Amino acid sequence: MTFHIDLNSDLGESFGTYVMGQDEHVLELVSSANVACGFHAGDPHIMNKTVKWAKEHHVGIGAHPGFPDLMGFGRRNLNVTPEEAYTLVLYQIGALHGFCSAHDVRLQHVKPHGALYNMASKDPELANAIAQAVKDFDPELILFGLANSELIRAAQDAALPYASEVFADRTYQPDGTLTPRVEKNAMIRDEQTAIDQVITMVKESKVTAVDGSIIDIEADTVCVHGDEPSALAFIKALRKRFDEENIVIERIGNL
Amino acid sequence: MTFHIDLNSDLGESFGTYVMGQDEHVLELVSSANVACGFHAGDPHIMNKTVKWAKEHHVGIGAHPGFPDLMGFGRRNLNVTPEEAYTLVLYQIGALHGFCSAHDVRLQHVKPHGALYNMASKDPELANAIAQAVKDFDPELILFGLANSELIRAAQDAALPYASEVFADRTYQPDGTLTPRVEKNAMIRDEQTAIDQVITMVKESKVTAVDGSIIDIEADTVCVHGDEPSALAFIKALRKRFDEENIVIERIGNL
Amino acid sequence: MTFHIDLNSDLGESFGTYVMGQDEHVLELVSSANVACGFHAGDPHIMNKTVKWAKEHHVGIGAHPGFPDLMGFGRRNLNVTPEEAYTLVLYQIGALHGFCSAHDVRLQHVKPHGALYNMASKDPELANAIAQAVKDFDPELILFGLANSELIRAAQDAALPYASEVFADRTYQPDGTLTPRVEKNAMIRDEQTAIDQVITMVKESKVTAVDGSIIDIEADTVCVHGDEPSALAFIKALRKRFDEENIVIERIGNL
Amino acid sequence: MTFHIDLNSDLGESFGTYVMGQDEHVLELVSSANVACGFHAGDPHIMNKTVKWAKEHHVGIGAHPGFPDLMGFGRRNLNVTPEEAYTLVLYQIGALHGFCSAHDVRLQHVKPHGALYNMASKDPELANAIAQAVKDFDPELILFGLANSELIRAAQDAALPYASEVFADRTYQPDGTLTPRVEKNAMIRDEQTAIDQVITMVKESKVTAVDGSIIDIEADTVCVHGDEPSALAFIKALRKRFDEENIVIERIGNL
Repeated sequence: MTFHIDLNSDLGESFGTYVMGQDEHVLELVSSANVACGFHAGDPHIMNKTVKWAKEHHVGIGAHPGFPDLMGFGRRNLNVTPEEAYTLVLYQIGALHGFCSAHDVRLQHVKPHGALYNMASKDPELANAIAQAVKDFDPELILFGLANSELIRAAQDAALPYASEVFADRTYQPDGTLTPRVEKNAMIRDEQTAIDQVITMVKESKVTAVDGSIIDIEADTVCVHGDEPSALAFIKALRKRFDEENIVIERIGNL
Repeated sequence: MTFHIDLNSDLGESFGTYVMGQDEHVLELVSSANVACGFHAGDPHIMNKTVKWAKEHHVGIGAHPGFPDLMGFGRRNLNVTPEEAYTLVLYQIGALHGFCSAHDVRLQHVKPHGALYNMASKDPELANAIAQAVKDFDPELILFGLANSELIRAAQDAALPYASEVFADRTYQPDGTLTPRVEKNAMIRDEQTAIDQVITMVKESKVTAVDGSIIDIEADTVCVHGDEPSALAFIKALRKRFDEENIVIERIGNL
Repeated sequence: MTFHIDLNSDLGESFGTYVMGQDEHVLELVSSANVACGFHAGDPHIMNKTVKWAKEHHVGIGAHPGFPDLMGFGRRNLNVTPEEAYTLVLYQIGALHGFCSAHDVRLQHVKPHGALYNMASKDPELANAIAQAVKDFDPELILFGLANSELIRAAQDAALPYASEVFADRTYQPDGTLTPRVEKNAMIRDEQTAIDQVITMVKESKVTAVDGSIIDIEADTVCVHGDEPSALAFIKALRKRFDEENIVIERIGNL
Repeated sequence: MTFHIDLNSDLGESFGTYVMGQDEHVLELVSSANVACGFHAGDPHIMNKTVKWAKEHHVGIGAHPGFPDLMGFGRRNLNVTPEEAYTLVLYQIGALHGFCSAHDVRLQHVKPHGALYNMASKDPELANAIAQAVKDFDPELILFGLANSELIRAAQDAALPYASEVFADRTYQPDGTLTPRVEKNAMIRDEQTAIDQVITMVKESKVTAVDGSIIDIEADTVCVHGDEPSALAFIKALRKRFDEENIVIERIGNL
């Protein structure tokens, strides 16, 4: 039996003269790219280049809209109304679509970034507003959201295609949510443990929570990071294991 | 004989809690709206509202991309490269298109704003970059440019639809360009003179330059302002005269 | 017996070409000005002009630091760390001090703006960070904070001069805090009721809470708004009543 | 005979999560730091940290005000009025001074950044506006400007302390200005040639222009870069040569 999984990473996070990430390398290893749209990171020049590269690598292109907080990299909660979230997301999807149009490539998905992602995972109104923005732009876009979260529920309610996202390097709570980063056991530091967790999520749709209980989790796409040199080694190790386990990496739009 | 002319105005220039213009009133009087895209003015919420209103008034919607200089309202020359201009324009067209998609209305045109418009009127490389951005996004978009300027030349070279724009309240040089604002005789303060000039431009494709010479000018669209209460009265007076002269206001996309 | 009170208002909230407020008129009616510092509102040109005007009117000048959120006018909660709050405040105090130095006038006070003010009213760590920033810049600066709030407590703990601020148009909870704006009875719409409340706060250091209980409140400075034409009439009516009640308006730095 | 020279470098150019430069290392090698003030680079957190570090290393602290153009890193000409330049500079000096106050260290100098520096080198009105801003803030601040430029002339006219700045890695025109970067021979790539040029400038106040003519140049401070690993090696080589030539590095405020 063969399994399929999408592998996504946040890309295009440089800004002006500031360089972040190793996009050229990561693009060779993932199947979907979440491209920053100029609010929490990214600028028009970077976005243009990233879309061009992603197309060349046949990587699925997604908008990665975030809060207008470059100084905080979109990681600080900002108390926006659902209506503000709707327009923030619509604006950023449109902006990235501009570059997709120019490069004659289709926008595949939308994944909210950072604090917006986290807040929308728990706040049904915010999640609904984001799903509505995606749907109003193009009802065939795939909404990426944390598995078991309000974002996935909102996509389902809006009859929008969606992808349940799982994280290799994070532990899970018994209710299926991520262990908050402030907790000591939030991160999985051991590479083998992280890879094992991914394999179980992909093949069995299960994950062992921090209390030892085994919970259901849908894994349509796995998020991997590309910021540090060690990150590339991890993705390569994960890919190698996928090979061994008969798991085929395929961009979500093709699944 | 009946003449047709498009009447355009810059709209959606509010930002956050800051209000600028009288958009609801202007939208009843013009046929095309140049909507600020968040760089020199406008924000996602304002853009959404402006697109909604413009659609309701059957006004043609255009992107009005400007320099990323909210503090200077995009009126200060910024020494961007043609490549930077290309990506700045593409980004902003895309962003506005996002709201057009959501409101199921077609983007009609693109008009560069302020200093970007002025610089591109004279700089062939900048003009080409802007025309390319418009074309790469959608080759059916109409590029608005100053009559007789490099922007119009660039649109022609790119085989892009275009509209030669004339100004009611500005005087012209013998070479067909606008008299720079620093000159004393740059502005036409007298309403009747301004209206007469527009009528001659529309019906005869001529304008009398500041030195008395009569020059050729193509007038596809007339720019009117909506910032001050007196502005509305001027537009109304101009529309009344259009009526008397058998000049029909029609949005450019329908011409 | 004569009472003294400071009357403060938020000023310098214009930005670039965007005009907000009626600063020239308000400056004739208040004793202290909270000047926006470029993050939630204001820009260098506006700050320079506002400091110049305030000095001419012998109005006490205060820094009004806010969140870096021009789009939301600093009114949206932003989840900053205390350390981030410390540096944000220090930066903005310094920036405004630049203009005070140029105009050879002393900075009198610091009043956090909008969401930063509200969050710091309840969050002791945030309040401490702000008080520390003020103290580290100049331990003689007066910190404005909501009466009975964590900001006042933080100023006391830091041995920093402070001013307990009361609001004419807001109702109070039995615990001395403001009724949240989301509540129906948060605002006092009736001018006479608002003025009566201020007089009682100033002369008796008491206020009647929404449940009818009478609570203690220190009133060192009264915040009045200047955004709307009716606002000026209110300030004038309040000043007239102060006259009748032997309450002298005096800027806080002179008290 | 002993010579004295100041060695300055641009520091604090990180922003949010974006890292630029190797400030900790450069601070051990220079005598003066030009600290970005949040407009073209830097943010409150970075500024605080940079001032703290500079003080610990006994390095003279200068404000490095630039254009409000983070996307372009302040390197793109922006057509500001002299009055706008005045307020932009005053704001940024004040902001940095905020952190100096908190760390109880004196602000030593002001060096305009990037395009603002280059424009002011040639534009007398812009140069005067900047000199006035510095003087109005504190007439004892030292204004850094390109040797032989309008900035130095403006400082002299304003009776402001100044430092003529020379560049190790740039060639000079017969009129004493830098060869524009667009010219092929603008940069000195050979380390030995660059160091020799500095030594001659410091000891003889002469430099050989690109046409072979020998011109006068005052060298109070030498600008060195710290962005790349090779940059540190260059500074070390320059310092070694200074030792051999009896040239003592001393921060400008002590000279």
